[in-house]
Amino acid sequence: MYEPVYIVGMGPGAEEMMTAEAVAVLEQSEVIVGYSLYLDLLGERFKDKEFLSTPMRQEAARCRMCFEQAVKGKKVAMVCSGDAGIYGMASLMLELKPQYPGCEVRVVSGVTAAGSGAAVLGAPLGHDFCVISLSDLLTPWEQIEKRLKAAAAGDFAIAVYNPASRKRGDYLKRACEILMENGAKPERACGYVENIGRKGEHAVTCTLKELKDEKVNMFTTVFIGNSQSEIIDGKLVTKRGYIL
Amino acid sequence: MYEPVYIVGMGPGAEEMMTAEAVAVLEQSEVIVGYSLYLDLLGERFKDKEFLSTPMRQEAARCRMCFEQAVKGKKVAMVCSGDAGIYGMASLMLELKPQYPGCEVRVVSGVTAAGSGAAVLGAPLGHDFCVISLSDLLTPWEQIEKRLKAAAAGDFAIAVYNPASRKRGDYLKRACEILMENGAKPERACGYVENIGRKGEHAVTCTLKELKDEKVNMFTTVFIGNSQSEIIDGKLVTKRGYIL
Repeated sequence: MYEPVYIVGMGPGAEEMMTAEAVAVLEQSEVIVGYSLYLDLLGERFKDKEFLSTPMRQEAARCRMCFEQAVKGKKVAMVCSGDAGIYGMASLMLELKPQYPGCEVRVVSGVTAAGSGAAVLGAPLGHDFCVISLSDLLTPWEQIEKRLKAAAAGDFAIAVYNPASRKRGDYLKRACEILMENGAKPERACGYVENIGRKGEHAVTCTLKELKDEKVNMFTTVFIGNSQSEIIDGKLVTKRGYIL
Repeated sequence: MYEPVYIVGMGPGAEEMMTAEAVAVLEQSEVIVGYSLYLDLLGERFKDKEFLSTPMRQEAARCRMCFEQAVKGKKVAMVCSGDAGIYGMASLMLELKPQYPGCEVRVVSGVTAAGSGAAVLGAPLGHDFCVISLSDLLTPWEQIEKRLKAAAAGDFAIAVYNPASRKRGDYLKRACEILMENGAKPERACGYVENIGRKGEHAVTCTLKELKDEKVNMFTTVFIGNSQSEIIDGKLVTKRGYIL
């Protein structure tokens, strides 16, 4: 009945890392909703759009804003960094949708930090992997700990999102300790990337023991290899298992 | 010393789902190497390139082909479906690179089936998740089973790659049984997508118990929710945990 609301994954931020579909959807929109940091990353070609935002932690209000604009007859897109469905706003939008009869939600995927960060480091996710967020804003720490233990038990490579924030300075250290207590060796090959695809991109490879004491921030994505991962010519590589 | 070899993730297949970076790298290449199915998916604008391929299972030969072309002075890109580093050729290329002094490998990420398939179904990967391949061509089944058990123990949402092939008709059934034996309830919300972003795209939502007996093939990506996932207005949604 109303125009569909698009939830668009913009990838790491640079326009060249968005899909053509994502760019087209944003170009066809009248209103672009998003966290201000992501709106700032959008290039000149979108500057004629109406931008709407809410502060951090007001995600539900931001989603409601999309539906309210759609009900007014506007063509609306909401931007998320990375992929729209991976810790993005797609799930919250779909949760809220039944409250807005006649509204429709369409999800446009994008390159998540697991993929874009892995490409910078080499190929740390070349085999089965987990993606785990260390943010305990919405998830009890006990559940995060349970998942870290399971990831170690399954010998998964791991992409760690939200490894730190101002209030969670030691969470990556705790995560590394949990992995080592559950069978991951201190020599496990690891790495991390700060500001993937943005100004100041910075990649480091290290061991799990070293990772424990590295300074990371909310713009860092961390990669922990599985037991077979290696650093080859400076790149972090998790092998698929080809016999050479 | 030589031109860098690019390993390019092309996403699900349609050009509109490639990143602008991936398209630009392919346009600047002279030689495009890849499995024939993926080369066939490339649009008209790449038809002036030299295409090189090897049959399935000759992945190492395909990688060597890239380096050999680079050593001849050619600008080479290898295409992978989805993301170049997620079960793609990036890890094998980085493994082989030390045998080709003067060669350099650059990875260009793309939208992997976990992201693109999730977008079709709704938002099944809205919280921590695992990606597990059921192919035992290169991985012992015992390891796959260990990872399925760990995924159940950690209450992860799961994206299942390679859920079936002609020789592995019952692997998804076995995987579902292992998950249920390890705590996942038969009512767990699930779904799958065939031919993501390609002709014949087809999405189904179902319970874990129903999934066990669904007919899937090598072009299907399967999604298994976590214990909190729900089907909302026909969409598979794994909530992030916002209090509404």
